[in-house]
Amino acid sequence: MPRQVTAFSNATVKLLRALRDKKARRRERLFLAEGLRILTEARDSGRLPEIIAFSAEGAKHPLAAEIIAATESAGGDAIETTPNILSKMSGKDNPQMLLGAYRQLDTKLDAIDRTRAPLWIVAQALRDPGNIGTILRTGDAVGAGGLILVDDCVDPFSVEAVRASMGAVFTQAVATARWSEFISWLRRGEGQLVGTSLKATRDYLDAEYQRPCFLLIGNEQQGLPADYEAECDLLVKIPMAGSADSLNAAMASAVMAFAISASWR
Amino acid sequence: MPRQVTAFSNATVKLLRALRDKKARRRERLFLAEGLRILTEARDSGRLPEIIAFSAEGAKHPLAAEIIAATESAGGDAIETTPNILSKMSGKDNPQMLLGAYRQLDTKLDAIDRTRAPLWIVAQALRDPGNIGTILRTGDAVGAGGLILVDDCVDPFSVEAVRASMGAVFTQAVATARWSEFISWLRRGEGQLVGTSLKATRDYLDAEYQRPCFLLIGNEQQGLPADYEAECDLLVKIPMAGSADSLNAAMASAVMAFAISASWR
Repeated sequence: MPRQVTAFSNATVKLLRALRDKKARRRERLFLAEGLRILTEARDSGRLPEIIAFSAEGAKHPLAAEIIAATESAGGDAIETTPNILSKMSGKDNPQMLLGAYRQLDTKLDAIDRTRAPLWIVAQALRDPGNIGTILRTGDAVGAGGLILVDDCVDPFSVEAVRASMGAVFTQAVATARWSEFISWLRRGEGQLVGTSLKATRDYLDAEYQRPCFLLIGNEQQGLPADYEAECDLLVKIPMAGSADSLNAAMASAVMAFAISASWR
Repeated sequence: MPRQVTAFSNATVKLLRALRDKKARRRERLFLAEGLRILTEARDSGRLPEIIAFSAEGAKHPLAAEIIAATESAGGDAIETTPNILSKMSGKDNPQMLLGAYRQLDTKLDAIDRTRAPLWIVAQALRDPGNIGTILRTGDAVGAGGLILVDDCVDPFSVEAVRASMGAVFTQAVATARWSEFISWLRRGEGQLVGTSLKATRDYLDAEYQRPCFLLIGNEQQGLPADYEAECDLLVKIPMAGSADSLNAAMASAVMAFAISASWR
């Protein structure tokens, strides 16, 4: 049976609130996901939270009740609490009535099986959690295997990134690595590294993409460093019609990922 | 010569601060844009602010000095102020050292010349200012003519939308209309209305897109209402590989807009 918890000083409440902070997420190897839709997505991907928190209202939905019961059956902790406490956990004024703390899976490169999917997205030094979440969601939609974060990207397990991923954080593999580690891992197996560059002469629609394809996306402000571009097996250009000189990083990922996938049909 | 203004009670400071609020933007027919990059984009598109505010530091950049001088030559108001006041205007802790208040152009449908571009994006009831800005930026990149906002969309002239547009708010036409007004305007001329729907059977890559093409994007949560779908001349589906059932509205716009544009090459 779920415990009733209404005190901010409760240890589980404190732990869940702390997970909005990156250091606590690292230490506990946990992250927060909110809302029935995302928790259902997680369950459908075979993932249950270690801790689930909800309001009396939130537990009324049959799907929520199922997930709460499954969490307890699997040995997880279930706490019924107040909307006010849920709001403090999620950092939103109108919190979801259900949230879960999930175990972070291994994010080492060696945990990635590149033969599992034809396309992988590699993001370099992304600064916006919303972009990371959106790229995960795009990866899920296009059938990518996962997202490899190189250099100093923001945490893919932040509340904002998980929210923007709409549950894709549970279906996409996530790995983090330094650039040199990534390149050495990449070259130990098959894989075409594809970068986009405004300096490239090859149009993105006229290129030949090989599987597995690793689509490399640069930082929002600077784009890819020159030596990263030099390492690419293929550099392509998305022609820009307008006066602004670039697409948003998440948009460029989506346009490229769908074009690569379309080229294989 | 620019005026020196250091008091929060100054009328121009008050006006600029008020522009973070939608009602004030409506009343004054002005909106804020921040930062040298976006103000330069505006200038290159032939637009100068009515009022320009900057720190002593901000005015040092030669491009900034040019825009400030051009604004004054054109009869605009230039004020030099403090980083603290700029921060209050932009609502950011680390404000840009330069910001401008620009006149909102006519947003009536009749101001749109549909023959000017092959592609127009039509967004319905979008709730996220970042999405509106990102869609404007995508429209600019793909060579769309502009963005038509139907039903109750968030304000395209909010600070957040303008920021996400990266200056595309100055290159893309923006119109707002009720759905019935839009349809009656659309049907008075040429134009193919294209919607995306998970229920459609036609793949987005196998469709024939006609110019001018009006790409209709639905609300982030609900997608398009059934009667809006019924009004479309063409309904297509972006096949989803993953378990999540949709792309983010801005991603779907980008994938569709670039695919439509590619089909005309």
